[in-house]
Amino acid sequence: MNTRRNERVSPHTTRKVRKLADGREIMYYDSDLDSSIDSDDRNASDRRVLVDAPAHTELRRDPLLDEWVVVAGHRQARTFHPPTNECPLCPSTAEQLTEIPESGYEVVVFENRFPSLTMHEIKDLDVPDIFPGFGRCEVVCFTSDHNSSLANVSPARMRTILSAWMDRDRSLSEIEGVEYVFIFENRGVEVGVTLSHPHGQIYAYPFIPPRDKQMRAVATDYTHETGRSLYQDVIDNEIDSQERIVFDGEHWVGFVPQAARWPFEIQLFTRRHISHVSDLNEAEQEEFAHAYPLLLKSLDAVLDVEMPYIAAWHQAPVGCSDQESRLFLEIFTLRRAQGKLKYLAGSESAAWVWVNDIAPEHAANEIRAAAKRISS
Amino acid sequence: MNTRRNERVSPHTTRKVRKLADGREIMYYDSDLDSSIDSDDRNASDRRVLVDAPAHTELRRDPLLDEWVVVAGHRQARTFHPPTNECPLCPSTAEQLTEIPESGYEVVVFENRFPSLTMHEIKDLDVPDIFPGFGRCEVVCFTSDHNSSLANVSPARMRTILSAWMDRDRSLSEIEGVEYVFIFENRGVEVGVTLSHPHGQIYAYPFIPPRDKQMRAVATDYTHETGRSLYQDVIDNEIDSQERIVFDGEHWVGFVPQAARWPFEIQLFTRRHISHVSDLNEAEQEEFAHAYPLLLKSLDAVLDVEMPYIAAWHQAPVGCSDQESRLFLEIFTLRRAQGKLKYLAGSESAAWVWVNDIAPEHAANEIRAAAKRISS
Repeated sequence: MNTRRNERVSPHTTRKVRKLADGREIMYYDSDLDSSIDSDDRNASDRRVLVDAPAHTELRRDPLLDEWVVVAGHRQARTFHPPTNECPLCPSTAEQLTEIPESGYEVVVFENRFPSLTMHEIKDLDVPDIFPGFGRCEVVCFTSDHNSSLANVSPARMRTILSAWMDRDRSLSEIEGVEYVFIFENRGVEVGVTLSHPHGQIYAYPFIPPRDKQMRAVATDYTHETGRSLYQDVIDNEIDSQERIVFDGEHWVGFVPQAARWPFEIQLFTRRHISHVSDLNEAEQEEFAHAYPLLLKSLDAVLDVEMPYIAAWHQAPVGCSDQESRLFLEIFTLRRAQGKLKYLAGSESAAWVWVNDIAPEHAANEIRAAAKRISS
Repeated sequence: MNTRRNERVSPHTTRKVRKLADGREIMYYDSDLDSSIDSDDRNASDRRVLVDAPAHTELRRDPLLDEWVVVAGHRQARTFHPPTNECPLCPSTAEQLTEIPESGYEVVVFENRFPSLTMHEIKDLDVPDIFPGFGRCEVVCFTSDHNSSLANVSPARMRTILSAWMDRDRSLSEIEGVEYVFIFENRGVEVGVTLSHPHGQIYAYPFIPPRDKQMRAVATDYTHETGRSLYQDVIDNEIDSQERIVFDGEHWVGFVPQAARWPFEIQLFTRRHISHVSDLNEAEQEEFAHAYPLLLKSLDAVLDVEMPYIAAWHQAPVGCSDQESRLFLEIFTLRRAQGKLKYLAGSESAAWVWVNDIAPEHAANEIRAAAKRISS
């Protein structure tokens, strides 16, 4: 049994690492600033008898596109919309043993029980272009309150979540073979979320994802041609025009991109160029902790209905701190109107040409107006 | 009023072009082999008073990805799940005037009333990277039977649909500025289809879509490195292994790709290398007319429920007949199990890394078994 003491991972946050019944790691992040939990001992044991989930996944190279696809057959059996009293992300009770042995927690991270990528060492397969699905998939629970959401956490809690994200970024980057740490949140049944408890995920990929690889290539070409930073020019253009700005802070600037693909889409950049979420300084963290929940609340207020969204940190590949990548948080919604979702149909899914039914300037107006409504 | 006579577009098919009330073109494709319709005069006039739909759309370049996004604000108002008796794709009746003035039709194609791209000439805008949404969007109705589907049309009708696709490919390719003709079908409310009448669409893009551009780049690199054709090698590998083959015809071969992204995905290639759908010869058309509806029926039979799917023809850019592109039909479903859909969440939508919960070999088995069940 792991009985390491709490380690300090940020000025206000400690981490305690323990093991679940099937050997998976679980990490409790607790804040000195968050007085909602009395005890930070985190010594509760996982009393479940867990059968090892079949975790054989594969990475297969699509020869026509030269991209990796994860084939994870076993995930068909993953937990699917359990009733609230069986939520595996709630703290454990006498009646219900969950993924989190403690009776309460602030922020907790554990290895996904149904992972797309695993650390398991499997010998190379015979077939060319098919490899073991190396990597690591983690679940990040933002709060023990089943009915809350990231939009509704306190700034203090948001700081703890940031500390956890930053710690995971550092830790996963140290694993040999991991090339990219992808931190994201899916919110809403409309995005296919099968557990409603407020949580995000982290995928440690053994390659640079196609989206981020392409951004690096485009940024490199741009710098070769102009001598300037693509990201900085995009940010400067948005600040100059002001049309699509939705957050204008001291350390962060957020805007609806000029060529937004999704109904309500925001890119949130730090004003200074940094590469990784773990590079965020104290002031950036503090502003973000207030700004981000407000932005999410604004999105919920736009159509007066909880927004299904995807939020993802784009950062540089592990070990890179060049100008070709730059940290930003991307948030986009899948709802375009009350009762109407944005679907990816033939143009998007088969040709990769997005059709957006909402003008980005209109979306920015709506988000700004919603922010005003909720703050008045 | 356009009163041109029927033109012959294939040995068995004639086309008659007319205009709708707002000036949009409508084209009737009628077959000598299909005796279901008595009169092919196609002289009915559109008696509706149509207000021109606002058709201002834009092409915006995403600077971070160097890709075009269509911004089409007006489409928010498009027809959304009308009741069956108001279906705009059914033939017109005395009570209900629809998009098709005739009281019956075989296959009909018309310009989309809510297009993402239009022929309208609009002067260049002031903002860099924002251009008028040039192109053309067409709707292809496969049958006048509202409750049928492409899976259920006769081989004779499939031939007429093919003739229409081939004719549209030729005609749209002649428009100056059109670089790619994208022929596709979205089927099922789960794909976001807002009209249930059996129909497909055609987008004439003024650029090569990112998906097809990337396939061309990968195929070019492959030929440089190996001296061989990527497409031919992929097809040969699939035929050698047989594991994922789902159709093994004289002129066509269909398989679940080794690195399939979607639950049930099929790539259907002609055995000879051709570039465009309009290059299909008589024998290829005839085999396809029998094979494709059967494949679609098999997909419906896999889970014993109508499959939501996207089907798309990938072809070479307009005017290209090199080895870098090769015609194939791609079909993929959005359902992974009864009651369970494949959602694109953070990994897919934000990082562009697909996670497929169904092993391609398993999917191929299921499709083959379903094909056997329905043919016995």
